[in-house]
Amino acid sequence: MIHSIHFDEPLELECGGVLPGVTVAYSTFGTMSPERDNVIWVCHAQTANSDVPDWWAHTVEKGRFLDPERYFVVCANILGSPYGTTCPMSINPATGEPWYGSFPHITIRDMVHCHMRLARHLGIDHVEMLIGSSMGGYQCMEWTIMEPAFTRRLALIATCDRQMPWAIAFSESQRMAIRADQSWGEPRPDAAAAGLAAARSVAMLSFRGREAYNISQDDPDRDTKTGDYRVSSYQRYQGKKLANRFDAYSYTTLLNGTDSHNVARGRGSVQQALSAITAPTLIVAITTDNLFSIEGHGNLIKYIPNNQLHIIESDYGHDGFLVEHNQLNDIITTFYNETV
Amino acid sequence: MIHSIHFDEPLELECGGVLPGVTVAYSTFGTMSPERDNVIWVCHAQTANSDVPDWWAHTVEKGRFLDPERYFVVCANILGSPYGTTCPMSINPATGEPWYGSFPHITIRDMVHCHMRLARHLGIDHVEMLIGSSMGGYQCMEWTIMEPAFTRRLALIATCDRQMPWAIAFSESQRMAIRADQSWGEPRPDAAAAGLAAARSVAMLSFRGREAYNISQDDPDRDTKTGDYRVSSYQRYQGKKLANRFDAYSYTTLLNGTDSHNVARGRGSVQQALSAITAPTLIVAITTDNLFSIEGHGNLIKYIPNNQLHIIESDYGHDGFLVEHNQLNDIITTFYNETV
Repeated sequence: MIHSIHFDEPLELECGGVLPGVTVAYSTFGTMSPERDNVIWVCHAQTANSDVPDWWAHTVEKGRFLDPERYFVVCANILGSPYGTTCPMSINPATGEPWYGSFPHITIRDMVHCHMRLARHLGIDHVEMLIGSSMGGYQCMEWTIMEPAFTRRLALIATCDRQMPWAIAFSESQRMAIRADQSWGEPRPDAAAAGLAAARSVAMLSFRGREAYNISQDDPDRDTKTGDYRVSSYQRYQGKKLANRFDAYSYTTLLNGTDSHNVARGRGSVQQALSAITAPTLIVAITTDNLFSIEGHGNLIKYIPNNQLHIIESDYGHDGFLVEHNQLNDIITTFYNETV
Repeated sequence: MIHSIHFDEPLELECGGVLPGVTVAYSTFGTMSPERDNVIWVCHAQTANSDVPDWWAHTVEKGRFLDPERYFVVCANILGSPYGTTCPMSINPATGEPWYGSFPHITIRDMVHCHMRLARHLGIDHVEMLIGSSMGGYQCMEWTIMEPAFTRRLALIATCDRQMPWAIAFSESQRMAIRADQSWGEPRPDAAAAGLAAARSVAMLSFRGREAYNISQDDPDRDTKTGDYRVSSYQRYQGKKLANRFDAYSYTTLLNGTDSHNVARGRGSVQQALSAITAPTLIVAITTDNLFSIEGHGNLIKYIPNNQLHIIESDYGHDGFLVEHNQLNDIITTFYNETV
């Protein structure tokens, strides 16, 4: 079940601008212990939502690392996302209309400030584990740097200390596709829907790698065709599916926020920033991840004081963190138990 | 200097349809020997043109593998490309207007049939070497399969026996970006220019790899910024540059033609197709090429009877064939001399 809480207090944003208040949608699984010592907080990635089982199969299940019979699992929809939290589709109280393209520029740190409000509201002053993959990992490391005592364990999966140029190049290509759609800027939820679909098709190229595509998207009858390839249908299907459940304004807001990620900003250096993380930290990288390579985790490995690296073998690229739930469960469960 | 020749004879296309005649633009460098035994034919890739030195630096130079003092180098602009050969910007004689979106679907084999007409026109019945990179390699292998005696040596660089699903996924993302631009379909040369720019930005992601981007497109002042990244400007610049020199109709025609590439089509199997290549064949792959991996050259290595593989070390991904001209020159010169 998805809950919702509105905070009247204005939210001052890192890049300037103020949101006059924020609504945060969140999901919980399991029951908080009277001692409040069984909380695991999940930070979701770009186009996901607070309903963890909806996008992360075989995790919120008995015997798994988010076992709801054992843990109280919390996941909040991120600021800027259209799954219940304040986003460009929300009403701007100053105009009485949705924000659409006028929604302010937000950063990962702004998202974390919303999570912090929710944690206070729920009476959670620390968690047993804070876990996130991809851009969810961005939130986790920012949160832990800002509030080192908040988490007893940190799990960072397929992520990086900052958004690298390679990843920004993917984002920019997506922004260009969205802006190429002349309906971009029109004050309606489905503005730039075709551009959004194209953007998602581009994003897919960063999520799945060459091998995954060549293995799973080949045409059995390829030797008789000169068009209508299976993989073309797949790209269009994925684009349309995202366009049906998202909007181009929220998507662009999240792309921009993701690109801003850099733990070093305003903190002297990446080393100074990451050395603030005192919790035992698990770092998981995926062999075929073309977006966040194993080497891309280098600064996390080098500068987080108490960390351990595990590598997942997968043909599924960055999406390996969604597909390889058995490997991931073993790694996270062992880490959790070892760091009691 | 770019020459142009018009062939009145209709060109029957592989997928049906007929072009009522074709113009072929071509460039030559050096002088054909009286014995006609010094010809090297270059096939160019998707958005290039017949003027080889314009896109392939340090090749048409004294002492290099396309030395114009020694060889007669020919390169023809491919069918569908707007650099002088018949393409969607050409006038359709049936309407008196440019073809634009009504240009027929063409394949690599159709492009090669135009090359063959030009070769006959120039009195060239064989060449000392046929060389092409990327989609230029597609043309070279098709030509050699159709006319095994045409070339004494074949050089295939960063290419594949067919367009793989991974590469088609990039093409489809580009087509989606072009079609998301609502001016796509309008009968003017700059229709879908913004979509075309976005498409080019996507293509760049396949040409240069992660490392090349992270090394060359980082922001020195990254720790103080939350937008306006150098790599974003780079993507937009590359997009605009292509949109200024190309049109979305020709670009899409070439994307579709490239995707159709499959030497096995209509020839029983890839083995049967490639076993027709009797010329000594050089295969060059690039370590960081994410579009045409080293393993992606596997069928060429396995099935071309007389081949040798060389690998170029490069941080520049698929674009390595343009950047690493010294390594390439050594490899090709050695191959050429050894196969006299």
